[in-house]
Amino acid sequence: MNDSLAATAAPALFTLTTGPVNCYPEVLSAIGKPVLYDYDPSFLEHYQSVVLKLQKALGISTMPVILQGEPVLGLEAAAHGLVAPGDRVLNLVSGVYGAGYGEWLKPLAGAFHEIRVGYDQAIDPADVQAFLAAHLDTAVVAVCHHDTPSGTLNPIAEIGKIVQAHGALLIVDAVSSWAGMEIDIEGIGADLLITGPNKCLGCPPALSILTLSDRAWAKLEANPKAPRASILSILDWKTAWKASEGFPFTPSVAEINALDAGLDRYLSETPEAVWARHALTARAMRAGVKAMGLTLWATDEAIASPTCTAVRLPEGVDETLLRNRMKQDYGVVISSGRAETFNALVRIGHMGPTAYPLYAVLALTALGGAMGALTGKPLDIGAGVAAANRVIQG
Amino acid sequence: MNDSLAATAAPALFTLTTGPVNCYPEVLSAIGKPVLYDYDPSFLEHYQSVVLKLQKALGISTMPVILQGEPVLGLEAAAHGLVAPGDRVLNLVSGVYGAGYGEWLKPLAGAFHEIRVGYDQAIDPADVQAFLAAHLDTAVVAVCHHDTPSGTLNPIAEIGKIVQAHGALLIVDAVSSWAGMEIDIEGIGADLLITGPNKCLGCPPALSILTLSDRAWAKLEANPKAPRASILSILDWKTAWKASEGFPFTPSVAEINALDAGLDRYLSETPEAVWARHALTARAMRAGVKAMGLTLWATDEAIASPTCTAVRLPEGVDETLLRNRMKQDYGVVISSGRAETFNALVRIGHMGPTAYPLYAVLALTALGGAMGALTGKPLDIGAGVAAANRVIQG
Amino acid sequence: MNDSLAATAAPALFTLTTGPVNCYPEVLSAIGKPVLYDYDPSFLEHYQSVVLKLQKALGISTMPVILQGEPVLGLEAAAHGLVAPGDRVLNLVSGVYGAGYGEWLKPLAGAFHEIRVGYDQAIDPADVQAFLAAHLDTAVVAVCHHDTPSGTLNPIAEIGKIVQAHGALLIVDAVSSWAGMEIDIEGIGADLLITGPNKCLGCPPALSILTLSDRAWAKLEANPKAPRASILSILDWKTAWKASEGFPFTPSVAEINALDAGLDRYLSETPEAVWARHALTARAMRAGVKAMGLTLWATDEAIASPTCTAVRLPEGVDETLLRNRMKQDYGVVISSGRAETFNALVRIGHMGPTAYPLYAVLALTALGGAMGALTGKPLDIGAGVAAANRVIQG
Amino acid sequence: MNDSLAATAAPALFTLTTGPVNCYPEVLSAIGKPVLYDYDPSFLEHYQSVVLKLQKALGISTMPVILQGEPVLGLEAAAHGLVAPGDRVLNLVSGVYGAGYGEWLKPLAGAFHEIRVGYDQAIDPADVQAFLAAHLDTAVVAVCHHDTPSGTLNPIAEIGKIVQAHGALLIVDAVSSWAGMEIDIEGIGADLLITGPNKCLGCPPALSILTLSDRAWAKLEANPKAPRASILSILDWKTAWKASEGFPFTPSVAEINALDAGLDRYLSETPEAVWARHALTARAMRAGVKAMGLTLWATDEAIASPTCTAVRLPEGVDETLLRNRMKQDYGVVISSGRAETFNALVRIGHMGPTAYPLYAVLALTALGGAMGALTGKPLDIGAGVAAANRVIQG
Repeated sequence: MNDSLAATAAPALFTLTTGPVNCYPEVLSAIGKPVLYDYDPSFLEHYQSVVLKLQKALGISTMPVILQGEPVLGLEAAAHGLVAPGDRVLNLVSGVYGAGYGEWLKPLAGAFHEIRVGYDQAIDPADVQAFLAAHLDTAVVAVCHHDTPSGTLNPIAEIGKIVQAHGALLIVDAVSSWAGMEIDIEGIGADLLITGPNKCLGCPPALSILTLSDRAWAKLEANPKAPRASILSILDWKTAWKASEGFPFTPSVAEINALDAGLDRYLSETPEAVWARHALTARAMRAGVKAMGLTLWATDEAIASPTCTAVRLPEGVDETLLRNRMKQDYGVVISSGRAETFNALVRIGHMGPTAYPLYAVLALTALGGAMGALTGKPLDIGAGVAAANRVIQG
Repeated sequence: MNDSLAATAAPALFTLTTGPVNCYPEVLSAIGKPVLYDYDPSFLEHYQSVVLKLQKALGISTMPVILQGEPVLGLEAAAHGLVAPGDRVLNLVSGVYGAGYGEWLKPLAGAFHEIRVGYDQAIDPADVQAFLAAHLDTAVVAVCHHDTPSGTLNPIAEIGKIVQAHGALLIVDAVSSWAGMEIDIEGIGADLLITGPNKCLGCPPALSILTLSDRAWAKLEANPKAPRASILSILDWKTAWKASEGFPFTPSVAEINALDAGLDRYLSETPEAVWARHALTARAMRAGVKAMGLTLWATDEAIASPTCTAVRLPEGVDETLLRNRMKQDYGVVISSGRAETFNALVRIGHMGPTAYPLYAVLALTALGGAMGALTGKPLDIGAGVAAANRVIQG
Repeated sequence: MNDSLAATAAPALFTLTTGPVNCYPEVLSAIGKPVLYDYDPSFLEHYQSVVLKLQKALGISTMPVILQGEPVLGLEAAAHGLVAPGDRVLNLVSGVYGAGYGEWLKPLAGAFHEIRVGYDQAIDPADVQAFLAAHLDTAVVAVCHHDTPSGTLNPIAEIGKIVQAHGALLIVDAVSSWAGMEIDIEGIGADLLITGPNKCLGCPPALSILTLSDRAWAKLEANPKAPRASILSILDWKTAWKASEGFPFTPSVAEINALDAGLDRYLSETPEAVWARHALTARAMRAGVKAMGLTLWATDEAIASPTCTAVRLPEGVDETLLRNRMKQDYGVVISSGRAETFNALVRIGHMGPTAYPLYAVLALTALGGAMGALTGKPLDIGAGVAAANRVIQG
Repeated sequence: MNDSLAATAAPALFTLTTGPVNCYPEVLSAIGKPVLYDYDPSFLEHYQSVVLKLQKALGISTMPVILQGEPVLGLEAAAHGLVAPGDRVLNLVSGVYGAGYGEWLKPLAGAFHEIRVGYDQAIDPADVQAFLAAHLDTAVVAVCHHDTPSGTLNPIAEIGKIVQAHGALLIVDAVSSWAGMEIDIEGIGADLLITGPNKCLGCPPALSILTLSDRAWAKLEANPKAPRASILSILDWKTAWKASEGFPFTPSVAEINALDAGLDRYLSETPEAVWARHALTARAMRAGVKAMGLTLWATDEAIASPTCTAVRLPEGVDETLLRNRMKQDYGVVISSGRAETFNALVRIGHMGPTAYPLYAVLALTALGGAMGALTGKPLDIGAGVAAANRVIQG
């Protein structure tokens, strides 16, 4: 062990977390641009161009909305905006974030239901179908696409199709999946999808990105309880994208500059290429994890997210000691679990600038090396890296 | 006129607004630092050190709170947190922002009152005294220190003394005055003061800074309606400054790095020196405005803020044409009025990096030059600049 | 006077010098990009694209050369490369830089001649004509376009025509004029022109830019004394622009990134627009200088450079005291004279990011204010600024 | 293989070269600071403080000199300055750079000698001793400490002792070793040592750093051929470090700002800690190389530099194909050999920001993976990484 090397107090050399992730160099250059007055006509034009670029990146026909706070703001705002008094609401729970969203939905709903599965599993669309058939007046369904504390995906395309056929409005939390994998937002019928620039787009955390269908806008406008003149209001920002309109309050200028650079990077690299390297990195990581004799958290590898690999902690391994050791000996910082998954798993993010397969090699070495050092039973790091490399060499 | 020179579409050369202001170079360098994971021990330590530095800059004995949105979030959160059901609330209105704050307070209050003066005047402390004597059960008083759309100050020291003696809690909006002039936060008895880094501290807009007295914390904790598990919650962030605690949600890492640099600059230059150059710049500006034959907005120059000079628009001068002309011919962007003061005045900010007296010269030239060009009646720019220079040369 | 305001030890608020100038914001963003290995294929491609962009900005048909040191390197290298043993060389001297160049040329030449005029005057093309007619074997003529320590221009178009007709090779020092005014490099017959990014292109000082005619290349290749395998070699870099070739030694990667951004800015704003604002700024400055009762250094205003205004120091005004006072009271830094012009004049640069007319106002105020404060005899700053403004309002 | 992943045309993800290396984040932040006028008193003070900091980092009692070009300038300047007409000069050659230096020394020397060993070996101090005993009038000895194209070290302490005892002046090229390992500059008797910020200090390439003993200064001053008034002059810069003196020409302001940040990083991390991680990284790398069945270039591992690992290319492996494949499949860029070592070896730098042991893992994977893919005979990457990890876990 090397005391002199990397005290846990030093900044990470490699931030391989599920967010905040470090940023693309282009983004770090752009965020330091001079800060313009929000009503400077050139900033008004700039803001409009960023929203148009964002619309293109999202692949939607309506105008997206940027809220001035990290995605937790978008999620809270979505619940307050879309759930009207008396609404019957179905929340789908396959993890900590899905469960947490219920805490916001429940007090707003007239009737509140949940479908729950184990946190290492995914929602079964058939259960949604059955619920909706039994509750025809369901107004809103909420689903978390990638429940980050579990690293698992829900089948939003299938769920979306069912909800769309039924006529309820669908809220999708796609914070940590969007821009790391393909999401056909309108195709799956997402009425209000929340994401952010601070995961797979490689920007800092400070903004929410929301897409709304025409039905979602209509619901918001009709909802007397939808926040207005508030930080929680989506409605206030509906026309803010137009250079001819003002802002309800000052947008986060530097973060908008960062988002602009993140979008340029995403579009110029092409979304398809970005998704491909997220998928490749995750495949290399999972192959290595298994080859080292460790176990993925997801009971079915098919639901493991391309943007995050959750690894089940072996009996007796303390996650804090493990992550401290990884930082101290290797300079690598990864994410812990949250709530029910805390101390049950650790997570390696594959997001934006870290979605390159060599980062999987790096994570495998640090994970295996630190775990072996902690337990005194060395893991076969070599097997792990070799397996990852076979995926890389395809 | 020079078409080729500076189309209104080009970014401003000189952003002399009342916020967002451009940032200090130190801040623009710092905001592009690598973004760390919020639970990286080195970020936890960093966050704690920033809050401690902030406490020092604020000159208070309690720990300040950073909320993750520009000061409008802090203002909304303060109202929701400090006003409990049934509270009698007094709101002091000497401008657009004071009036706007009443819109948030009113629905939260049991009984709601306002003292109003003209938007070019300041609240008379005697009126506050009289009101409180007549309404002994008043629980909360709110005052805007610098009502930015008017460029005018309220006498918060005197008001604070009265409120403190009475026992009500005092909310102070010091967003655009703090760090540009001395505010003895605890001395004046501010229980919940809201400010931000995006004005006189020369940072970008994306964070709120709040100071709370022990009484304010007690009120929040006792208030069943105070937001919890919400972007609007102050309580959620009470212990977030401790490196040993977590965050309720991801802080805006890049903006924290920027704030850190802004605080370093403020403290190393010394607050006294910073306040002195704000005051000097404003004095130079006001001398020049008067020498050019224009009129200050404030009826009494003593209430004109050192952080902003509001100039009454002469009859027949359209503010949009004027500001466009200033940008086109001089590359200078200043602020318009808001609501009732829109098209009645224009405002030049003296905040942080623009609080140097030569910026007053620059603003005078652009203001006088553009107005003369628009009206066909040249102003005596020379007299304005000479008057400003006499102030500079003291 | 304000001690607390701006100690001379603090960095300048406004660097209005003749170089180094502060940089465009785009340049400061770009210089902090990750530093690539010079043989990384993506850097090789990048370098080629920068040289091609530079060729476009220069408006020439041959490939320019970048040397890895500020323009003094280019100037020294040009002398060593173009002057062969035995060459008859004519050096034209209208200022300190022209005279200094002779120090390099003289020991390299077979026969060395100079035409000299007062340092506030320009070379008369007729004198060049007469000299060449009398010395038919003259091989090289050297001229400084903008002799920066005097702020004066030589008529290079006329001189170039004469030299071209004669058949000698022409060296042109255009370090501080290029990119601030039109120079038809091939039209005037410049065989080896030296400039740099650190003046009117708004980049930092660290690179030389050279253009060579085919005749210049032929001379270099034939010259046995032309430096090879040396920092002073131009030949070493002849093919370095090609992505398929290597570099003789490591180029200054960060500075190349900065140059790239400076060129983007220049080309996107359009050279014509850039030249126009340099000219306008200089006209405003000169009008103000005269209106304040000061005297231009150039005996004939027609030879005053659009990139620099040299102001004759009144009797008894010490330039160091004056410039210190300007910095202390106004935060403005300007350039002193050099050698023979030291303490005889001061110079305000209009270069790149400072070539906007409001900077003239700022310089006039600081110059006039400081001089008045020093001498106890206030200058009419008002008249100066008003005159400048009349030019701005055109 | 992944076409979509990392075209060779994209910038490297991981620049693991022997220089230019990518920079520390602190350096990339600092290089974008506003560019000050070199004669701004605050820059003069800053320059002095940087040279004093540099002196501390170098651990010397004389004042170091910064030359304004990457270290090749310092090397050329040293030869021209220290070799006087008629001098007997001994050049020690154990690699391409040592041999190249002879090309500069030879034409300057009265008598010129070389001691040569194979490029995978080190100079034997006994041979130096023998030479000097046989040539008592030897005036100058030159040695390359780390001959980068071979990744090998010469025993400069032993050589220095011998040269010092003899009385000749010793030139040491420590460009790619200094700041990555301990060098007792005065202890070993280096009279003129050349290094730079662009290797182990983690700054961009654009400056040379020179240390001179009093004897070296005396020699320069006495040498009529030592360059003066030239980019090649060391003498011109002798007093430039003093804030009270001027500069012979404009220093590279942005690069000085970068150097300042690199020195801060080096001194605050402590040189000992920096050297330790360079050594650890190289040890991990060498262990992995051998475990994968590859061969180090150095015939004796004891002479392998801690700042670079040179790996012998197996028969039939083309270095260009190999390095392209490493970039394409892994995003990793390493250095090729030069001249005689080209296509005989490849080199992985361990310098500054890449001198952390996980970078060795990363390099091993990319090197082994690409070589296996190219040859069709997979290397045992697992064994390589495991061996590296055993070193890391020490």
